[in-house]
Amino acid sequence: MSVRVGVLGATGAVGQRLIQLLDPHPEFEIAALTASESSAGKTYREAAKWRVDAPIPTDVAEIEVGATAPEAVPDDVDLIFSSLPSGVGEQVEPEFCEAGYVVSSNSSNGRMDEDVPLTIPEVNADHVDLIEVQRDERGWDGALLKNPNCSTITMVPALEALDRAFDLTDVRVSTLQAVSGAGYSGVSSMEIIDNAIPHIGGEEQKMETESRKLLGSFDGAEVRLHDMDVAASCNRIPTLDGHLENVWADTADDVTAEEAAEAMEAVSGIDLPSSPEQLITVFEEPDRPQPRLDRNTEGGMGVAVGGFRETTDGVQFNCLAHNTMRGAAGASILNGELLDKRGYL
Amino acid sequence: MSVRVGVLGATGAVGQRLIQLLDPHPEFEIAALTASESSAGKTYREAAKWRVDAPIPTDVAEIEVGATAPEAVPDDVDLIFSSLPSGVGEQVEPEFCEAGYVVSSNSSNGRMDEDVPLTIPEVNADHVDLIEVQRDERGWDGALLKNPNCSTITMVPALEALDRAFDLTDVRVSTLQAVSGAGYSGVSSMEIIDNAIPHIGGEEQKMETESRKLLGSFDGAEVRLHDMDVAASCNRIPTLDGHLENVWADTADDVTAEEAAEAMEAVSGIDLPSSPEQLITVFEEPDRPQPRLDRNTEGGMGVAVGGFRETTDGVQFNCLAHNTMRGAAGASILNGELLDKRGYL
Amino acid sequence: MSVRVGVLGATGAVGQRLIQLLDPHPEFEIAALTASESSAGKTYREAAKWRVDAPIPTDVAEIEVGATAPEAVPDDVDLIFSSLPSGVGEQVEPEFCEAGYVVSSNSSNGRMDEDVPLTIPEVNADHVDLIEVQRDERGWDGALLKNPNCSTITMVPALEALDRAFDLTDVRVSTLQAVSGAGYSGVSSMEIIDNAIPHIGGEEQKMETESRKLLGSFDGAEVRLHDMDVAASCNRIPTLDGHLENVWADTADDVTAEEAAEAMEAVSGIDLPSSPEQLITVFEEPDRPQPRLDRNTEGGMGVAVGGFRETTDGVQFNCLAHNTMRGAAGASILNGELLDKRGYL
Amino acid sequence: MSVRVGVLGATGAVGQRLIQLLDPHPEFEIAALTASESSAGKTYREAAKWRVDAPIPTDVAEIEVGATAPEAVPDDVDLIFSSLPSGVGEQVEPEFCEAGYVVSSNSSNGRMDEDVPLTIPEVNADHVDLIEVQRDERGWDGALLKNPNCSTITMVPALEALDRAFDLTDVRVSTLQAVSGAGYSGVSSMEIIDNAIPHIGGEEQKMETESRKLLGSFDGAEVRLHDMDVAASCNRIPTLDGHLENVWADTADDVTAEEAAEAMEAVSGIDLPSSPEQLITVFEEPDRPQPRLDRNTEGGMGVAVGGFRETTDGVQFNCLAHNTMRGAAGASILNGELLDKRGYL
Repeated sequence: MSVRVGVLGATGAVGQRLIQLLDPHPEFEIAALTASESSAGKTYREAAKWRVDAPIPTDVAEIEVGATAPEAVPDDVDLIFSSLPSGVGEQVEPEFCEAGYVVSSNSSNGRMDEDVPLTIPEVNADHVDLIEVQRDERGWDGALLKNPNCSTITMVPALEALDRAFDLTDVRVSTLQAVSGAGYSGVSSMEIIDNAIPHIGGEEQKMETESRKLLGSFDGAEVRLHDMDVAASCNRIPTLDGHLENVWADTADDVTAEEAAEAMEAVSGIDLPSSPEQLITVFEEPDRPQPRLDRNTEGGMGVAVGGFRETTDGVQFNCLAHNTMRGAAGASILNGELLDKRGYL
Repeated sequence: MSVRVGVLGATGAVGQRLIQLLDPHPEFEIAALTASESSAGKTYREAAKWRVDAPIPTDVAEIEVGATAPEAVPDDVDLIFSSLPSGVGEQVEPEFCEAGYVVSSNSSNGRMDEDVPLTIPEVNADHVDLIEVQRDERGWDGALLKNPNCSTITMVPALEALDRAFDLTDVRVSTLQAVSGAGYSGVSSMEIIDNAIPHIGGEEQKMETESRKLLGSFDGAEVRLHDMDVAASCNRIPTLDGHLENVWADTADDVTAEEAAEAMEAVSGIDLPSSPEQLITVFEEPDRPQPRLDRNTEGGMGVAVGGFRETTDGVQFNCLAHNTMRGAAGASILNGELLDKRGYL
Repeated sequence: MSVRVGVLGATGAVGQRLIQLLDPHPEFEIAALTASESSAGKTYREAAKWRVDAPIPTDVAEIEVGATAPEAVPDDVDLIFSSLPSGVGEQVEPEFCEAGYVVSSNSSNGRMDEDVPLTIPEVNADHVDLIEVQRDERGWDGALLKNPNCSTITMVPALEALDRAFDLTDVRVSTLQAVSGAGYSGVSSMEIIDNAIPHIGGEEQKMETESRKLLGSFDGAEVRLHDMDVAASCNRIPTLDGHLENVWADTADDVTAEEAAEAMEAVSGIDLPSSPEQLITVFEEPDRPQPRLDRNTEGGMGVAVGGFRETTDGVQFNCLAHNTMRGAAGASILNGELLDKRGYL
Repeated sequence: MSVRVGVLGATGAVGQRLIQLLDPHPEFEIAALTASESSAGKTYREAAKWRVDAPIPTDVAEIEVGATAPEAVPDDVDLIFSSLPSGVGEQVEPEFCEAGYVVSSNSSNGRMDEDVPLTIPEVNADHVDLIEVQRDERGWDGALLKNPNCSTITMVPALEALDRAFDLTDVRVSTLQAVSGAGYSGVSSMEIIDNAIPHIGGEEQKMETESRKLLGSFDGAEVRLHDMDVAASCNRIPTLDGHLENVWADTADDVTAEEAAEAMEAVSGIDLPSSPEQLITVFEEPDRPQPRLDRNTEGGMGVAVGGFRETTDGVQFNCLAHNTMRGAAGASILNGELLDKRGYL
């Protein structure tokens, strides 16, 4: 019995990745695609300027794209994936939830709302039950679950392993982010060739707050933010896919470089179709992980780490994840699988 | 009365920048060029595969290149610029000093030696008098003065401004370094296109030690290292010129973002031909400085800063300098001007 | 007595280059800047997101930007430079001409109109007198002069030299064009990093027709197109500035590689401020000219050629020019200088 | 019954691709790896700096690398793949052939020798029997078969289709070649970022001669070169993989754009494991094929074409192939499969 899914914002960069991942998915079946008004009524092939470096799935190509509104989506759709500009998501997602749809959203709106769960299933699957609170408060039959920002997802699995074993106090993180994180037209070539941009609007704040919510504790009623101090510095560089991050993690307990690596390598996966066998892969070579060589670790759903060095107050290391796979489309699908397993569909 | 100068390693990437800067220099006159054995006897035009994006200076082009040995350089050369691989520099530079030549060197060998001054004239010009100690100990008529590594130079002027006003305790720095820092053939295109490399051999250590020597105090006998804690994480990115750095500076005294920027902007220059009028330029736009747009600030000899944010323990900001100008060739020339002014030639 | 000039579309990529070139111009003085409605009323500093890698000229920065309409430009402006999207240019330029303004335009609209002169002053300055016909037909006090497309300008000076000496019959040209040719946001980084695009909409047609008009003959009444056959294949590559082109030129008369190079090198300049001393620079090295190293030949207003080889029917060679300097902003300014010299202002 | 194969030059860029393709090969089994003297005795993992963006095959990683000499390779190896620098190949390959080994070589040495077959199996499989002549003349038990240069392979399948249907007379080709074609360290990042190089030493000649041999006729005794005239212009651009080429093909018979595309699409494959189902894929979109999006067409073994336009004398079009797959490693393996099928092992 497959789950019938819809994709809001199916023609964008993340939307295309969602299609690519959903087409061969063992449990999900694409039943509805939506896009902006100008695309409604066209086939997906016509509406999407397909830019994934693999052919467009032939059956999906002929699906007629609908408008992004609850009434344009069949009632028997079980699960909605949303990858909309945050301004649109802010307006449309609650309409879907009110109409009874369960939404797994990659859009940035509402991630820090008190009654909206923000999850990376391998890190804080238990937070999903905040949906009970959400339904109570909002009177929804549906539900809204968020995954974090791509730059946050890249570092949090490694931070969680350190926090559990050594108790995190302070985190400093500097990112080298790929252009695909800004969408297909987000960064012009004139801006980035032979260049780097030391600022991504709102990104530092997302990393600083979302990470504390993800590592926070949920007591059945609310999520208490982790009290660690996080400071981020975000940079865009001329790389297509894969966010690389330099992290300084200060810990309350002593930690060696070896112990930090071991704690990460020991993280066990979770029993969901898209969760990789090895969540965090440790590289021994000091110059790894690298975006082009290592972004597809575990099919793009793994996190790669390396470059461990002890510091006065903890440890520094590098981490890398594929920003549109593990960091966006794959993150939403994984959350969708979690919703299914927990009986929210 | 111009100073007659020689350039060791004149055909390399930094060597070519040296030529470009020395040719129009108001006080220095190129009198000797050296390179490896295979180039000796050729004209500079033949020996150098000129790769600067401006024509080769016509008079320099016809100079005959000599071997890199004291006997191949005329006695009346007053000042030697050295930009050699560190293995070669380690062996050859002392020979020149012993033969009576005064050497301003960009090579990394010996920078942390106790009797070798390491200077950025605008930061610690007084350290140059360590030459007296050096001459005593080594019995040289000549002298050896070093400039720091390009990634160190980029951040130290800003750090010095903060230290003077607010007392630095801890520094975390993440670098986004251009490929020219590795020399013309140092980074292959296969390594870096659509990629980033989170490690540059030895670079972290250079930044962590050189910065403490530069901000250290010289009492006439020795340089005491600054006791701040410095941790660096160095990355190579697909940018041609200009090192961009994200810095977290923790200070003993309270500091606001505005105060930090003002302290840097207020740094006064030094009266040397190659020192810029405004050493540190503060950008208001949060997405500046950027390598391609801002690396030529003050003719490539300035430092650009921006992105100030207060943190729990101090301030974070970004800094940028042109790595082969301010960070290498220009740094050596500036040191040469300092040697001249202080009467060491 | 300086010429008072206005710039239409002053905030775009070519507009910014126009400002950069006009600010220090010996004869032109910036008197009016226009942009879209949303920018009208702002200072140029506010309206333009300045992206040239040199600071914004301070006096220009404070000029108030007006709307792009004749009534928003002072009457005493002598010359208008237009760098508008072709759709806008098509509508607005005739309004300015009708209102009595003389317009030197880089916009692509109307270039092949029978009564619109299309000139590269060093190639076909005499065509400018087609303005007499234009004024007769359209009843304008003003006038409209066009410069060709950037990819056309790159090859035509070299072709003209060959045609004059050896009589061109067929031209095949393959281009490697920089992203700046599409404007600041024209090519997204996702489209072009680690990629090339073998098509630029309308560009092949522009090269094929404009080149024949430029090399055509003007008899005082009309321009007869050159009867050579031109076939172009246009590619976008990940380069910032500088269009590189591979040309096969078949000639009626025999030509050797040396003769072809000599014919180009012998082209004399024209007595206008922005025309370079040496219009065409011949490189001996087979791997030159290269965009990054050679696009600034003669201050960006020269054409660089190399790679000459004889073929069965003529000669093949490579040519390069800076697309936003010689190919756009500089081309318009040069045409403005021509208009001034010929007494059309 | 699998074929035991050896790889000469197994640590280079093409060598690594060979390993990647041979590891899962249905008929070939890796039995010997060789590299330079300095690598002999190490495991492949130690000797190769593995740079493919997929993990090193675990069983291959532990194979001990031998010297590149016949005596270092087991006698029961049936087939040798050679990907050596041409200077080394020129010396070593004949030694292997003399020692009885059958060699499928990607090295450029000897490709135009009269008794050395040069094949693309889908184009001129029959030429392989030139081995009989070769064995007669050289007295070898082994044999030497070559595949063409990567830039030649990219265009020849399409040219063959045109030639068969419309009789080729003249070919002009301009290439946009990826950096991987020069090997891992062949093009430095300083040379190619924000740049293009309009010359690749010897490449034009290879394309001009090899294509005529491939389309030549073999009568059992010798290969007669095709009498078409080929002129190439080769460029290196900042792309990692995938050679894109603009071709003008003049034909004796009339041809429309549609007919040209149809002739290419109709080319049937050949019954060998590595030959793709669809040899030539025709793209309708005028801006395709593009290197990053389309180089993996048919698993990297297909050729992609598009951009057809009629010209006065024939047709112009673009073609693309993955240079280290279809253009090098895959080409050699395909030739190895041909040798096996024809009974030469």
